[in-house]
Amino acid sequence: MSVVDFARFVDELATQSGQAILPFFRAAFATEDKAAGHAAFDPVTEADRAGEAVMRRLIAASFPDHGILGEEFGAERADADYVWVLDPIDGTRAFIAGLPTWGTLIGLTRGGVPCYGLMNQPFTGERFYGDGEAAHCQGPHGTRRLLTRRKGELSEAVLHTTDPRLFGPGDREAYDRVEGAVRLARYGADCYAYAMLAAGHIDLVVEAGLKPYDIVAMIPVIEGAGGVVTTWEGTSAAKGGRIVAAGDKRLHAAALALLNS
Amino acid sequence: MSVVDFARFVDELATQSGQAILPFFRAAFATEDKAAGHAAFDPVTEADRAGEAVMRRLIAASFPDHGILGEEFGAERADADYVWVLDPIDGTRAFIAGLPTWGTLIGLTRGGVPCYGLMNQPFTGERFYGDGEAAHCQGPHGTRRLLTRRKGELSEAVLHTTDPRLFGPGDREAYDRVEGAVRLARYGADCYAYAMLAAGHIDLVVEAGLKPYDIVAMIPVIEGAGGVVTTWEGTSAAKGGRIVAAGDKRLHAAALALLNS
Repeated sequence: MSVVDFARFVDELATQSGQAILPFFRAAFATEDKAAGHAAFDPVTEADRAGEAVMRRLIAASFPDHGILGEEFGAERADADYVWVLDPIDGTRAFIAGLPTWGTLIGLTRGGVPCYGLMNQPFTGERFYGDGEAAHCQGPHGTRRLLTRRKGELSEAVLHTTDPRLFGPGDREAYDRVEGAVRLARYGADCYAYAMLAAGHIDLVVEAGLKPYDIVAMIPVIEGAGGVVTTWEGTSAAKGGRIVAAGDKRLHAAALALLNS
Repeated sequence: MSVVDFARFVDELATQSGQAILPFFRAAFATEDKAAGHAAFDPVTEADRAGEAVMRRLIAASFPDHGILGEEFGAERADADYVWVLDPIDGTRAFIAGLPTWGTLIGLTRGGVPCYGLMNQPFTGERFYGDGEAAHCQGPHGTRRLLTRRKGELSEAVLHTTDPRLFGPGDREAYDRVEGAVRLARYGADCYAYAMLAAGHIDLVVEAGLKPYDIVAMIPVIEGAGGVVTTWEGTSAAKGGRIVAAGDKRLHAAALALLNS
């Protein structure tokens, strides 16, 4: 089965998970802490669970031999050739604050390599998707090709990170070196920042502590748009961890050098 | 002329400024620095100017004796009874990064007191507006009354600020005391944070260095939704400066106490 066939199926995953999640957005609902304690506040919503459950049901029905790694319900058949990597709501903090910068991340790996990914934003009606060769955005204003901006200089770059407090002490110093070198740094965009990097509006995203389901879906989108995304060590981003994404490979190299200096 | 009559006119200002601004969103365009130098990077776009120009033309044609205070083109007849306070793109950094958390702010003061305000987000199709007595949100999913969340305890509150680096040293310490006391703090939402406070998703917004046009339009929205917005000294927010907005007056008092302790 080709990636083209998967594209239609992923669209259906996005449609059905969006229908499950959207009614909870900006509605009053209870949140629970996944990890106990104030510092590790991590809201989990009914929407998260409903969104992942509907995707798991569809995958099990259509591809019973595929593996699934999801934020809410863990891993099954993680050693399968094809593995779906799902985050029903990336940006739960944005979600509970009513901001439209969260997204549903749907990634597919083959032999551990991300081969297709889609980010769905059902409130704005936008889908960002790619297969590593090309990437597109489909929304209320039409469908267009995504292409990264080719800015090679840190001093010209627009940088994003979700929250600088998420870096550990040593990582924070490394991040701060990059922040000090760029033209503009903004906070708070979660997965939307990777989509805007693919779309050519943001040049650089630096984060740490990502899980595979936070980034796998965005890898074929970023690469399909002409960007580069790796760990801070320059290795595959597919296992998460400390991630740097750039619209331009020269900028990526410059950021890596500064992170590791 | 009553505020009800102004409401229809403000809708027209929002429609026409949105039509002027939206074509520039996510399009390639040049930005200039309003202030020279890296530290004071403040993008001004063609969109900003086009949006304010169209609003000024409409106001001059309909209410030639009214004053206007705008971000882009300054003040005229600032001592008039009615003064329009305009920010065509609040959140220019979000705008240039492609994020939909910017807004067009249209405020009206009478005798220096904000009496009507609207925030327009033309990309998502949302308008948040109020007259100090009531507030509403109109969007693709319908129109609904805005009501703040009545959470009185800092330990339960969701806090927003656009960027903690925007506080001066003493103010940063005061802000950090509040951040340390709340349940969750997020960055990066600009005027959208005030709209989400009015809508009951965010409990507290703390900022510094605001201009009148950054906040005047949001005051009748926040107050109309049941919230409180003042300076850190507890005085009128209409002149900008250091601002604290809360969905609940007990929370507002607790935040003021901590900011001034």
